[in-house]
Amino acid sequence: MNLTVKEITTLTDGRTNGIYEIAITGAAGLDEAGPTDISFIANPKYASKVANSKAGLIFITDEFKTNKPAIIVKNPQLAFAKVLTVLAEDILPDYKPLIHQQACVSKSAKIAPGVHIGPFVVIEDNVQVGEDTVIVANTFIGSNTKIGANSLIYPNVTIRENIIIGQRAIIHPGVVIGGDGFGFVGAKKHFKIPQIGTVEIGDDVEIGSNCAIDRATIGKTKIGSGTKIDNMVHFAHNVIVGENCIICGQSGIAGSAKIGDYVTMAAQSGITGHVSVGDNTIVAARAAVIGDVRPNQIVSGFPARPHREAMKVEALIRKLPDLFEKIKILTQKVNK
Amino acid sequence: MNLTVKEITTLTDGRTNGIYEIAITGAAGLDEAGPTDISFIANPKYASKVANSKAGLIFITDEFKTNKPAIIVKNPQLAFAKVLTVLAEDILPDYKPLIHQQACVSKSAKIAPGVHIGPFVVIEDNVQVGEDTVIVANTFIGSNTKIGANSLIYPNVTIRENIIIGQRAIIHPGVVIGGDGFGFVGAKKHFKIPQIGTVEIGDDVEIGSNCAIDRATIGKTKIGSGTKIDNMVHFAHNVIVGENCIICGQSGIAGSAKIGDYVTMAAQSGITGHVSVGDNTIVAARAAVIGDVRPNQIVSGFPARPHREAMKVEALIRKLPDLFEKIKILTQKVNK
Amino acid sequence: MNLTVKEITTLTDGRTNGIYEIAITGAAGLDEAGPTDISFIANPKYASKVANSKAGLIFITDEFKTNKPAIIVKNPQLAFAKVLTVLAEDILPDYKPLIHQQACVSKSAKIAPGVHIGPFVVIEDNVQVGEDTVIVANTFIGSNTKIGANSLIYPNVTIRENIIIGQRAIIHPGVVIGGDGFGFVGAKKHFKIPQIGTVEIGDDVEIGSNCAIDRATIGKTKIGSGTKIDNMVHFAHNVIVGENCIICGQSGIAGSAKIGDYVTMAAQSGITGHVSVGDNTIVAARAAVIGDVRPNQIVSGFPARPHREAMKVEALIRKLPDLFEKIKILTQKVNK
Repeated sequence: MNLTVKEITTLTDGRTNGIYEIAITGAAGLDEAGPTDISFIANPKYASKVANSKAGLIFITDEFKTNKPAIIVKNPQLAFAKVLTVLAEDILPDYKPLIHQQACVSKSAKIAPGVHIGPFVVIEDNVQVGEDTVIVANTFIGSNTKIGANSLIYPNVTIRENIIIGQRAIIHPGVVIGGDGFGFVGAKKHFKIPQIGTVEIGDDVEIGSNCAIDRATIGKTKIGSGTKIDNMVHFAHNVIVGENCIICGQSGIAGSAKIGDYVTMAAQSGITGHVSVGDNTIVAARAAVIGDVRPNQIVSGFPARPHREAMKVEALIRKLPDLFEKIKILTQKVNK
Repeated sequence: MNLTVKEITTLTDGRTNGIYEIAITGAAGLDEAGPTDISFIANPKYASKVANSKAGLIFITDEFKTNKPAIIVKNPQLAFAKVLTVLAEDILPDYKPLIHQQACVSKSAKIAPGVHIGPFVVIEDNVQVGEDTVIVANTFIGSNTKIGANSLIYPNVTIRENIIIGQRAIIHPGVVIGGDGFGFVGAKKHFKIPQIGTVEIGDDVEIGSNCAIDRATIGKTKIGSGTKIDNMVHFAHNVIVGENCIICGQSGIAGSAKIGDYVTMAAQSGITGHVSVGDNTIVAARAAVIGDVRPNQIVSGFPARPHREAMKVEALIRKLPDLFEKIKILTQKVNK
Repeated sequence: MNLTVKEITTLTDGRTNGIYEIAITGAAGLDEAGPTDISFIANPKYASKVANSKAGLIFITDEFKTNKPAIIVKNPQLAFAKVLTVLAEDILPDYKPLIHQQACVSKSAKIAPGVHIGPFVVIEDNVQVGEDTVIVANTFIGSNTKIGANSLIYPNVTIRENIIIGQRAIIHPGVVIGGDGFGFVGAKKHFKIPQIGTVEIGDDVEIGSNCAIDRATIGKTKIGSGTKIDNMVHFAHNVIVGENCIICGQSGIAGSAKIGDYVTMAAQSGITGHVSVGDNTIVAARAAVIGDVRPNQIVSGFPARPHREAMKVEALIRKLPDLFEKIKILTQKVNK
């Protein structure tokens, strides 16, 4: 695909710092870009990379000065992502409307126009699939589940019965939605508590490879609209996650925990059961939250504390060898 | 489904605190329950919730006093779970005996009566599947593997060759049983040690979504009867787990570790290779066991220590800022 | 299968400590081995086990003295693994060349001679599969992906489009290769950054059950030849892992991190984004690397530090109860 400078400025609501006739065919980082690639600078500390870059065009902000061919935009990374979205059309597979003859689709399922159902997909009774949704291959959708329009469901996904998923969902391979919550009663013999609740997922939610989102014991496990989830994340039964959260890889949330909107959980973090985490809070990588956290906090460590406090304690821990030495000397002085 | 008070008292071995004519059609927590729902109180600290609940019936213990319609039972949560089990019959899918025409079942496989084998299931040579077992869809069962009666195997599961699984197993989606153990020899080129052992799983075992249970190098990886495993748990080769254990989400056990009966591993915990953990021991969330642990212990932290000791150290770590300040003052005094 | 002593010495480049006529039919650890089994001793501290072992033959080194029937080799564990490789031929499934009639293979795919493609495998357009490669069942290979010769791909694997995998790969069940990297732009609404890069995997790479290896945003996520990866490992977009690394279970590497050759990551460890880890470095279990690490280091803890330093701090942390007591006494003395 060729993009003209004109097309790019229109797409990104930008303006050039000169008049250029360049056909952009690719996109790359400043170090890797060639003369037909577009690149971007998001952080002024990489200014020297701009000077050395062979990129044909560079997205910059108004404050950034360069005499290289550039397009001035508000958010260079966002502009770059928009160009990638156009370039991606040539690269990403294009699944046409189709119900593959090697799929197994119940007669009672309601499949909207434009849907692609690939080989070895199972669609059970009374499933609803919205317009233009793509279900690539080898995926299972259990009875009565509803999937919104314009969603993309990759191979080897399992979505069990009675689940609701909104529009524009992206569900990566190996994801399990609606597996039983982990609930037993009895100290010795573990009697299974049937998990008869569901999972309700809003619009524009993305769920990374091999995640597991358990169904509620009763009621709903919920994921708010706009929330993005990285690979191998575990949400237990009755977890409530708000809107526009970012949940990074290998994190986990235990049963009935409630997470607000715009919460970030960095990689390998955890939240214990039945706690509340307020809006806009950031849980640092590896942090483990074991109590309620107010909104707008940054917490880190295990048990998670306000990040500044955790950092101070961490710094003091590193000074322990010094401290022990000091006290030895002090004790000797006092004893004299 | 409608349950009468009579049916519920019979089912749960309970008695009412009055005479009631209520048709129970659902079940819910005290806060969410309505007049046709049953609920329960397991912990007296939630007594005020009983007062405010709109539940039609509430399971209570003999000690708990209320003038709301209630059923007195020994274990309210267990009674509640039993009612859920009955209600679930209407909600959970009912897979009838069937070998789906889009399945791929070896002629040498022994499939007992009442078995359901759904679409795109692969059953290799000499597999044995016990009576009334359900294999939902898109699941692979390797040659010579035996699965006991009344088991439930969800979609996209992989059970490799020569594995033994007992009766009433529940295997959630995406589980891998019998993948190769992680064994190599040679410091530079890593020569693969063939993994020719198996996995042996007892009765009444439940394995959560996307778990991986590796086969033994030689001999057996074992999971004892009644053990319940949450999502994304990793058991390495030759791990031995006892009976009636509870292994919570995202935990892992390294090669040849041996875990007793009634052991609890809380979420995101780990056990290193070749160690022993005694019966009834609790490994706290995020704890990492790096040496043998005797029976009946609670251990926490990394490296895992007796919980009381770990808590004490943790409390002192939080006092470090104070301590450093104190020592500064003390040093000044001494120097004067 | 029967192996003669002659066949075993030839296979392992060893010599016997006597003249024996034993038919070896199995292999086992020293404790479990019987008179037709071969075993090995890798560590002299287990010498007493040799004395008590019922093994028919034992691999030993030149330094080790025993009057039991033994084969002297350079590396007993490697010799043992070689025997296992031969014995495994009888035990491991043998997938013959075949394109199963229940597979779904694009006409434009190039399938080399000797390939096995099992039931419910999807092979999209322009895929290339090298000679004698086995794709067991229920696996998805996206368009334009190339898989080298003599590879083994287990069931329920997803390999997306435009991926390159070398020769002799072993991909365990549930693995996802080429899922989207986790990239968004915008603080509030998360605009998806299209992930148009690929994954390039060298020769002799093994990837454990339920791992997820994300594709690059632009360019390549790379795994060098000879690297072995355990279960449930997560590599984010644009991660570069060198050759002959060992990455243990439940570890994760964040975006754009670069790992050298011969690096070991022990279980449940993590590496943050955009850092570099030098050749031959060992990251201990549970360690979390948050900055660059030079070659030939051992690092542990969170944040990861040189292991000796981390151990010292850890030892002092355990002495905190003592320290607080000492300071209490010291303060009393000074105040007097």
